[in-house]
Amino acid sequence: MNSTASAQRTLHVALDERSYPIHIGTELMGRADMLTPYLAGQQVMVVTNETIAPLYLDKLCASLPDHLEVRTVILPDGEQYKTIEQVSRIWDALLEAGFNRRCTLIALGGGVIGDMVGYAAASYQRGVAFIQVPTTLLSQVDSSVGGKTGVNHPLGKNMIGAFWQPKAVLVDIDTLKSLPRRELSAGLAEVIKYGLIRDEAFLSWLEANMPALLDVEPEVVAEAIARSCQIKADIVAEDETEQGVRALLNLGHTFGHAIEAHQGYGNWLHGEAVGAGMAMAATLSRRLGWLTDAALARSLAVIESAELPLAAPANMDSDDFLTRMRLDKKNIDTRLRLVLLNALGDACVSDATPVDVLRTLLDDYPRCQVAK
Amino acid sequence: MNSTASAQRTLHVALDERSYPIHIGTELMGRADMLTPYLAGQQVMVVTNETIAPLYLDKLCASLPDHLEVRTVILPDGEQYKTIEQVSRIWDALLEAGFNRRCTLIALGGGVIGDMVGYAAASYQRGVAFIQVPTTLLSQVDSSVGGKTGVNHPLGKNMIGAFWQPKAVLVDIDTLKSLPRRELSAGLAEVIKYGLIRDEAFLSWLEANMPALLDVEPEVVAEAIARSCQIKADIVAEDETEQGVRALLNLGHTFGHAIEAHQGYGNWLHGEAVGAGMAMAATLSRRLGWLTDAALARSLAVIESAELPLAAPANMDSDDFLTRMRLDKKNIDTRLRLVLLNALGDACVSDATPVDVLRTLLDDYPRCQVAK
Repeated sequence: MNSTASAQRTLHVALDERSYPIHIGTELMGRADMLTPYLAGQQVMVVTNETIAPLYLDKLCASLPDHLEVRTVILPDGEQYKTIEQVSRIWDALLEAGFNRRCTLIALGGGVIGDMVGYAAASYQRGVAFIQVPTTLLSQVDSSVGGKTGVNHPLGKNMIGAFWQPKAVLVDIDTLKSLPRRELSAGLAEVIKYGLIRDEAFLSWLEANMPALLDVEPEVVAEAIARSCQIKADIVAEDETEQGVRALLNLGHTFGHAIEAHQGYGNWLHGEAVGAGMAMAATLSRRLGWLTDAALARSLAVIESAELPLAAPANMDSDDFLTRMRLDKKNIDTRLRLVLLNALGDACVSDATPVDVLRTLLDDYPRCQVAK
Repeated sequence: MNSTASAQRTLHVALDERSYPIHIGTELMGRADMLTPYLAGQQVMVVTNETIAPLYLDKLCASLPDHLEVRTVILPDGEQYKTIEQVSRIWDALLEAGFNRRCTLIALGGGVIGDMVGYAAASYQRGVAFIQVPTTLLSQVDSSVGGKTGVNHPLGKNMIGAFWQPKAVLVDIDTLKSLPRRELSAGLAEVIKYGLIRDEAFLSWLEANMPALLDVEPEVVAEAIARSCQIKADIVAEDETEQGVRALLNLGHTFGHAIEAHQGYGNWLHGEAVGAGMAMAATLSRRLGWLTDAALARSLAVIESAELPLAAPANMDSDDFLTRMRLDKKNIDTRLRLVLLNALGDACVSDATPVDVLRTLLDDYPRCQVAK
């Protein structure tokens, strides 16, 4: 892997007739040739949030040819607004504008916008085209690949949604310059995840390049995004609707979703919860005798080097975890299934964890000194 | 075609790995062997409405084995309740019960229940299993075949939804004994439609058997349902997501949806609006010189023999129609496309209707003397 390669590259996600390209680079936002080939018709609805709109909405809309009918929807910013009510606002806008089946939705924003716009597209007139323009590292490496769309419910994260693939993804890494440092770290949680589950060489590369990633050096960031997207794309191509190997992408997420749901969406960032969740999964893997002490130490160190939390929330006891984890989508017929590590770069889905081992882990796992 | 054949039969809808059976017959509701082979896991949610619940809910639930976890949701009855809010009630119930990805939803009711439960299943945890137990003639011959699910929006019918196939459909024609005569006629509109678009011999059979159908003679009804489902299944198998030939199933629906939306959902039954809509489409086909006078007369006579309206609502002028028709999903890039008849048993999708011909038709088409 070469950290000095050009910042511009294109990946292809192979899903038969639903295949699509991911364009990664700098200064992509204003280029019409990056969007227009993927529009289904003349009607375009750009959906963004109140934070992103003043930064990039005009630039993106200005790049669209004049003959198109372009409308915009601006939603409130934050995971707490990832709801069916906000998706309904998109549907209302589409219907008020008289948009038909050949319209295209463009999601300009982070994972919350991407997931909601994707679901709005999946369900509008039983499915219309959409394009992702992710503006956070998390969404660039995670939610823009794989076709998972949806919204949260008071009783669980991502409980309502659909599998729906975009026509294209446009990753302009210049958007990361405006991203708060805390959100950059949250995105790195998913980048680290790809190394932990599938690619020990990538994990080593991350250990060496973490300072450059936190400094948003374009070539290094482009490489990390491309490598992450490629690993995810390979896994999704194997298992589009999560019947098997795709579940590995949920490393840290069963613990992490429990943290997010308990703390209230938006208080812990998704990536922060996944960072602590991966630390918990690695620690459990060590206790089951699967990881060595050295491998556990490397796992925790790389998570910490990305300025992510290792400890669980101070106000969350073992029962809080167990109650929330039972609802997780990976638990077939209420049997608890977890993604664990056989080794660095080698994850598995396992239902072999005895309940008492899990409870003991939760009982004595470190907690943050102060709730976030 | 043999109207004295046994009332029991099974069709198979061929959609690769999404193929499913349709069981048609009498006394099917209480038979566990008709449902249990299609359950994905141990968790079962039966969704019905306030009208159907006292008639069949206990009987259906009693037929399910004791080891299953069975819950029920009872929604209000009527097209005006086919909304995202009612679907959210199903999601709430699923989450409150802690139902996971391997749960199964059973839709017990007419087309409204089937469409809502199908959409709830399509979107719950990005897709779970569902089984249709349609209890109206309309849903037995139409909405239980083809995987179209969804809800209405104040600005348009079925505007929010998904393509999602059931695991099985159980058509117990005993349920038609409790169906109001007006709803029986509404169901016959779709039966007649299959003859008009694809099968002139079936149309002749319907002309001969209409009195027996209105009397709900089991063997005749079973034959009409089986033949209708087979025609629809053949068309859906050719074109699952309505890119081409499937659009023929919308004969009368562009006019009909405009009538339903203008009158307020539930005031005109869907089948009644389709009946009048098919009469309008046949009349337009005559004016374009495609149908003979004799063919138009037969079209109108068979619709009328099913006790369906031929005239349009008294309070609906030409502009009311044109405004509503523009939003119809078949209109690609705002160009008006209509399903018309080349001959009896031979429909086509056409954008060849000059706007002035359509407007003249709407201007002088008969109206009901009194609004429904």
